[in-house]
Amino acid sequence: MRLAVVGGLAAGPAAAMEARRRGADVVLFEAGRHISVGVCEIPYYVAGRLGGASLEARTPADLEREGIDVRTRHRVTGLDAARGVLTVDALEFGSTHEERFDRVILATGTRPRRLGIDGETAAGVFSVRTLADADALRLWLDAEPVRHVVVVGGGYVGLELAETMRDRGLRATILDPQGRVLAGTLDPSLGGPMRDALHASGVAVRAERPTEIRTDGAGRVASVRTDAGEMIGCQCVVVAIGVEPEDALTRAAGLKRGASGALAVDDEMRTSARTVWACGDAVEVERASDGRRVHWPLAPVARRTARIAARNATRTGREGGRADRLAPIACAVAVRAFGVEAASVGLHIEQAERSGLDAVAVTIWSRSRTAHFPGSEPLAVRLVAERGSGRLLGGQLTGREGAALRANVLVPLIQARATADVLAEDTDLVYNPPVAPAVDPLRVVAREVWKAATDRSRR
Amino acid sequence: MRLAVVGGLAAGPAAAMEARRRGADVVLFEAGRHISVGVCEIPYYVAGRLGGASLEARTPADLEREGIDVRTRHRVTGLDAARGVLTVDALEFGSTHEERFDRVILATGTRPRRLGIDGETAAGVFSVRTLADADALRLWLDAEPVRHVVVVGGGYVGLELAETMRDRGLRATILDPQGRVLAGTLDPSLGGPMRDALHASGVAVRAERPTEIRTDGAGRVASVRTDAGEMIGCQCVVVAIGVEPEDALTRAAGLKRGASGALAVDDEMRTSARTVWACGDAVEVERASDGRRVHWPLAPVARRTARIAARNATRTGREGGRADRLAPIACAVAVRAFGVEAASVGLHIEQAERSGLDAVAVTIWSRSRTAHFPGSEPLAVRLVAERGSGRLLGGQLTGREGAALRANVLVPLIQARATADVLAEDTDLVYNPPVAPAVDPLRVVAREVWKAATDRSRR
Repeated sequence: MRLAVVGGLAAGPAAAMEARRRGADVVLFEAGRHISVGVCEIPYYVAGRLGGASLEARTPADLEREGIDVRTRHRVTGLDAARGVLTVDALEFGSTHEERFDRVILATGTRPRRLGIDGETAAGVFSVRTLADADALRLWLDAEPVRHVVVVGGGYVGLELAETMRDRGLRATILDPQGRVLAGTLDPSLGGPMRDALHASGVAVRAERPTEIRTDGAGRVASVRTDAGEMIGCQCVVVAIGVEPEDALTRAAGLKRGASGALAVDDEMRTSARTVWACGDAVEVERASDGRRVHWPLAPVARRTARIAARNATRTGREGGRADRLAPIACAVAVRAFGVEAASVGLHIEQAERSGLDAVAVTIWSRSRTAHFPGSEPLAVRLVAERGSGRLLGGQLTGREGAALRANVLVPLIQARATADVLAEDTDLVYNPPVAPAVDPLRVVAREVWKAATDRSRR
Repeated sequence: MRLAVVGGLAAGPAAAMEARRRGADVVLFEAGRHISVGVCEIPYYVAGRLGGASLEARTPADLEREGIDVRTRHRVTGLDAARGVLTVDALEFGSTHEERFDRVILATGTRPRRLGIDGETAAGVFSVRTLADADALRLWLDAEPVRHVVVVGGGYVGLELAETMRDRGLRATILDPQGRVLAGTLDPSLGGPMRDALHASGVAVRAERPTEIRTDGAGRVASVRTDAGEMIGCQCVVVAIGVEPEDALTRAAGLKRGASGALAVDDEMRTSARTVWACGDAVEVERASDGRRVHWPLAPVARRTARIAARNATRTGREGGRADRLAPIACAVAVRAFGVEAASVGLHIEQAERSGLDAVAVTIWSRSRTAHFPGSEPLAVRLVAERGSGRLLGGQLTGREGAALRANVLVPLIQARATADVLAEDTDLVYNPPVAPAVDPLRVVAREVWKAATDRSRR
């Protein structure tokens, strides 16, 4: 069986390796020079915090040793699923040709969202999605007299980039229309610890949008104008306002997209074309809390979908057996920056309400360790549950320690559609004074949200 | 309804408060002077690490304000369940009387195991189960010229006490017949990080048992003789070889005990007598992994059983409703000492085999964060699964960070009887380079143990 994998950033190589292990004849196409890039580590790479470590987890040579035909600098521009034909631009040669495959796995990933304002292509304006982006940003910071960096976007990537700049001894300002960081991760009521840490680090967060990027005489970024009419002088701008599916090929091929805008796949990762599977950041996946299909472009899920796509794309009739299927995901995310952790699993209350769920949320402020224990830090925990049933829909945690890993316990509970009383009453989490209070803060708030969700007098 | 609660250390006051909230007329009997003592915090209290914080979470006056009749220095020596009569010694008065109750909750707890050797009652030999023990040990360390402390027992309490002595600038030696610490928590293959940390701290661990404690002319401890014929000079001995149910009253009352030696109760916490419930460290509870009833005297479970006992003991016929029941517990425990964390959930492979389960275990050494990230530390994860089904039976983790809280995710999985592939494939744990590798070490080892458990060629 001849299998094409399109896209080499992370999911593509994982899918190619799995398919190769299962005996397929695999060709991997990647438009860039590198494959298997650790995109999530870019902020730390730019900060110089990874030592000499490369962001390339695997090189083309690594995959070729496994018998995979790796074609970097080859862009796939067309896919005729019915005929099994790809149209491929060989970028180094300027030539285009067609190639036949039995099956195709698309791992076409995402592209950074653009601001769409004047000056966005000026020297000194960067996004951080590829190794080339990362190297260009690092070189700019090394070579130019940068003192102040404007980071556009206060999501976790923007936050990590602000920390990068702090680590490099630079001043950073975050522009985010919400006027705060991690608006997608934490409820406003949980913003305190990170806000305090940013303030202490001298990072400003402004509730403004950039409207124009201005340059100096040499075409280098010199300032950012905002919708508040302010001019912010800076020598570097990093745009981190999220990503969107890279859909040029999938649109050209006429593949069905979902409501989220990402590629629609079933739980076996098959697209609307019978011989085409897809994986990674390109696809929609089912969210456990509400059954909605969402675009959730994070590495752990991308790897999982890559393996499923590869197994199903290489499945033969003879083999039989049950297809590999993606279970609904909890949607867990965590970040640690400026000494503060933040994590979110499942739904915020606003998301639950948008999904038509009648939800209730409770926040408590507790401690990461037994109250009087040295090193005990404030820890905020917020849980969202369905009114009536008390089913856990989501949770968020933040604090200087014990927030990120503590969130993980919500993942299997939400996936199992557990009610909040199960966490409050039955789940005997670890206790030790230097590790956690005797009744873990998660269990304390679970009891509160269970009460609130099942309180008949308030219905 | 007139309800007696016997025992005031931790579960007793929790049960009394809950029963009082539900309208019962509650009398709490406690032989000692204090109630609601944070026993788990004693090592840190002795080390002086809790500042001026008291170990008493609640005082008798606190409970009396809630309308509970608190009788400290009253020992209950007899229980005639059929007649509803308690025999009570008023210790301050040297008098004994009988008192009638409709229902009784026993929270009689545990007592420290004794060595049973000569010299065990000498001045300078301590156990650490009560506030009086803690104060006596602290006074001894403050007042006597102590340089070297022998800690008998290398479980987590012994380990914490060795850290206490290190924090006080004293030399400590741990005697444990296993020749290592945390033998009940960690598989020998996971002992490295803690062993290294103890070595770096100058704490010796000797595979010896004490056979005699010798005193100086003033009756103060001077040395410990061991079964290796060694004499270890010391000025203090702390015995931490575990606890056993305090069963004087329950034996006298003829209540049924379980195979573990602890009091037998059903999942509503009712003893073999119809009007007597029990809770806390006195009782047996069901372990989720193997359904076996075990003695698991840890605070989080004790609190839970107290609430269940109180709700069921105060349930009236009219009220109806489903009884509160204890779900099988995962048996999670964690410790952090000498900068190393260790955690265990569920069964070790030897325990699984003793329960008649065909089990397989796999250990991996991974990292607490993305490999090259600053602060990334070695992290060992071991999982135990049932051969054939692949059901998760237990897990153990150790390392300088990320071991204790990471263990929590195993609790709901084991309680739900999940198989290892659910953790490996479906459970999308948080990822962020400063928090965890892209595929969490728990998921990596879950895939390995799933393969090992379901490998038909090896059956």
